[in-house]
Amino acid sequence: MTNTPLADLLAYQKETEALAQVAGRLGWDQETVMPRGSAEQRGEEMAAMESVLHARRTDARLGEWLAACEGSELSQADAAKLRHIRRSHDRARKVPAALAAELARVTSVAQGQWAEARAKDDFAAFAPVLSRVVELRQQEAEALAEGGDLYDALANDYEPGATAAELAAMFDEMRPRLVELRGKVLEKPAPKGLGGTFPDEGQMAFATKLALAFGYDLSRGRIDKAVHPFSSGSGNDVRITTRTNPEDPFNCFYSTIHEVGHGSYEQNIDQGYLLTPLGQGVSMGVHESQSRIYENQLGRSRAFTGWIYDQMRAQFGDIGVDNADDFYAAVNRVQKDFIRTEADELQYNLHIMLRFDLERALISGDLKVPDLETAWNERFEADFGYAVPRASLGCLQDVHWSVGLFGYFPTYSLGNVYAGCLAKALRADLPDLDEALAQGDTTPATGWLRDKVQRHGGLYEPKEVITLACGGEAPSAGPLLDYIETKFGDLYDL
Amino acid sequence: MTNTPLADLLAYQKETEALAQVAGRLGWDQETVMPRGSAEQRGEEMAAMESVLHARRTDARLGEWLAACEGSELSQADAAKLRHIRRSHDRARKVPAALAAELARVTSVAQGQWAEARAKDDFAAFAPVLSRVVELRQQEAEALAEGGDLYDALANDYEPGATAAELAAMFDEMRPRLVELRGKVLEKPAPKGLGGTFPDEGQMAFATKLALAFGYDLSRGRIDKAVHPFSSGSGNDVRITTRTNPEDPFNCFYSTIHEVGHGSYEQNIDQGYLLTPLGQGVSMGVHESQSRIYENQLGRSRAFTGWIYDQMRAQFGDIGVDNADDFYAAVNRVQKDFIRTEADELQYNLHIMLRFDLERALISGDLKVPDLETAWNERFEADFGYAVPRASLGCLQDVHWSVGLFGYFPTYSLGNVYAGCLAKALRADLPDLDEALAQGDTTPATGWLRDKVQRHGGLYEPKEVITLACGGEAPSAGPLLDYIETKFGDLYDL
Repeated sequence: MTNTPLADLLAYQKETEALAQVAGRLGWDQETVMPRGSAEQRGEEMAAMESVLHARRTDARLGEWLAACEGSELSQADAAKLRHIRRSHDRARKVPAALAAELARVTSVAQGQWAEARAKDDFAAFAPVLSRVVELRQQEAEALAEGGDLYDALANDYEPGATAAELAAMFDEMRPRLVELRGKVLEKPAPKGLGGTFPDEGQMAFATKLALAFGYDLSRGRIDKAVHPFSSGSGNDVRITTRTNPEDPFNCFYSTIHEVGHGSYEQNIDQGYLLTPLGQGVSMGVHESQSRIYENQLGRSRAFTGWIYDQMRAQFGDIGVDNADDFYAAVNRVQKDFIRTEADELQYNLHIMLRFDLERALISGDLKVPDLETAWNERFEADFGYAVPRASLGCLQDVHWSVGLFGYFPTYSLGNVYAGCLAKALRADLPDLDEALAQGDTTPATGWLRDKVQRHGGLYEPKEVITLACGGEAPSAGPLLDYIETKFGDLYDL
Repeated sequence: MTNTPLADLLAYQKETEALAQVAGRLGWDQETVMPRGSAEQRGEEMAAMESVLHARRTDARLGEWLAACEGSELSQADAAKLRHIRRSHDRARKVPAALAAELARVTSVAQGQWAEARAKDDFAAFAPVLSRVVELRQQEAEALAEGGDLYDALANDYEPGATAAELAAMFDEMRPRLVELRGKVLEKPAPKGLGGTFPDEGQMAFATKLALAFGYDLSRGRIDKAVHPFSSGSGNDVRITTRTNPEDPFNCFYSTIHEVGHGSYEQNIDQGYLLTPLGQGVSMGVHESQSRIYENQLGRSRAFTGWIYDQMRAQFGDIGVDNADDFYAAVNRVQKDFIRTEADELQYNLHIMLRFDLERALISGDLKVPDLETAWNERFEADFGYAVPRASLGCLQDVHWSVGLFGYFPTYSLGNVYAGCLAKALRADLPDLDEALAQGDTTPATGWLRDKVQRHGGLYEPKEVITLACGGEAPSAGPLLDYIETKFGDLYDL
């Protein structure tokens, strides 16, 4: 029996997708349950999986099957599958094996040196290896770009279709409005924070309650603790992690809601796309739109925080604030801070645009790594209004660049912008949304997101799925900025 | 740069070993932490890993490299590595892909039907699919045996070099002495069992203490709960599981010690063999010798149970027996029972020889599956002296045959026999052993086993490593039988 090239291609790809799930789960295992003494062996195991996956992605048969199928009459889903496979095949073949191996080796070393340098607040100790990472990523970008923009080539790994020019225009629109609002808000007195005690076990029980309230399916997922919260896996085995800090339960709760946004996206993809290139979130930006809208526009809304307030009082007793309005203010407190991952909705994107401009300059060669710390600190003071006291609170705070993630940061802001657009459309479609949220009922909202965005997986291109969800309106920063100005204007009596 | 065929072969094999570790860990994950809703997806992932491993094991380059190396001057370790790779390569190439796929499919179905049939005590419902499993394994055995004995071919998967004839002779020596001793012991009054309460968490804490007492390295391993205790992984990521039953703490404690025996064997293999064919236990029989000697000859000794008694009293308070001699008798209580996995040292091997004779007859065709239940029940009554009341306590109790494991059962007895030989040699080398065990100190014994057996991994053939450990004496059932007769003779005043 002879199969069609399409059937052969999709059968081969199914096995590749299954192997990619296995490799991803190794990552989950490493961050949650792996015995610490097996790090080196695990490195060999991960490398072996990567080697198998790389061999499959570059396999010449893929090229033959693709050539035989492309241009023929295909269903929408099959055409989308081919588009993804083509992209991955071309990308894998463009990068010389020696360069890929050197990048893997150097970023592995760089990550360790970054951790050491951060612990010692010593950027100079990290600069040499970072220079080498930048150099290798420039070379990779040249191989990928084939004469086009280097930064675009890198960003496309995380957000297909994104361009530096579009991103820059988006940030140009956002920056003045956010800088101005930040200035006004920080002149006002800071709201009161939480008080009380929040034992670890109680936090995890509450986090599970929140996850279930947002529709996370524990029969096809897990919640564990890890140093850094993350979501992992696709289809019917999607695992999230969170962390606890006895004095800061919001860290645990909102990390959980955030990761539930990522996890639910994966869990809610059409089951027919399981183990196909459509069976996972389509881009980092769209992924982040789901985590952010769960965490912020829904989870930090006045309506939903009212419900959280009642639930927390019932479980933890005195929590240091004694009415739902003060609780809402505490959840959304804007503070002078330096760390991106702990930033509020108002300041978060200022952190990203700083990184975007700096990493673009690094890749283009306009900024040299030895000058990075000074450039960071100057820009931070301009946007935030206060100085960075040490490198661990500045340019050494994020792991991303050490592992070669250039072009990744802007997808966080893209996610926020998409979330702003989706929230506007969702509120237009669901006028009674707040009544449900006030009861702790997210199903109207999560059902809307599942139907409009999540179930499609990789069927549409990133911008396309957001546009369709928003009734044909192309995404822009406007809705997010309007939402932030209204929310924080109300909260801070501006 | 051109590598030698040996270097190419070993580099390729290292990647295969790493992938095999990954596949094994998927199994651990499935039995401990996998969300129940992802069983089907997991099946696809496991199949994809198996397909990758099968492709590597049958890769024509392996044959070329092996041919180029075999016969040349090699170190002892390299020669052993080649022997293992040759065995695995030949085995994988002998079995037609269609037969392997059909076996995977049918045994997957059969396992489900076995579980259902066992729940309903209905052997007839299971017989048709078991017949098909037997048929397929017969075909596989024919492909593997190339004219030799079919049962030998199957047993060699688990115990290289084992033959049905040798195993039959071993059981012939054991059976009369064990049957006679069982009869005498069961005429005596049964010792008192434990009483008291043993909460799950306390049992797990105690199990961890026992694991550490036996030298299990938690920096390179884990202990989790699972429905059936098992050990998984090699090298620096070796995980064991146990289970708790509030009324029967011995089940948890001795399962733990047993699995620690398996796990320690893997952990203690020479680190230079990591991710080579020598980097794992050499056979099921030698593996079981380690788990059994930890569990029985050490863990159930009068000396060590004295220490356990004190520790249990300290942790659990009143445990229903009030002196160490009665505790020793309770640990080693011989009871009328039907279940292999719960059998005491005296009766355990009677369970195995029954299965060995029956499965040999099934594979040779002398026994037909529809007649299996009757044959089982007749043989059981002859050896144990009482009748099997229902199939779940008889021929439906074990999962093995449903998943095609024919030739596996005798490795349990082989392990007991090897443990008997090792215990004799160990006691001869360590005259003060009991003094250490009485203090909860297993290091003289576990150090001896590490040095004589465990560190060698796959360097020697199974019988060879036992013979070397025993100072040149070839393994036989005598030492085990002598040990059992002395121990239970003393315990039951015979």
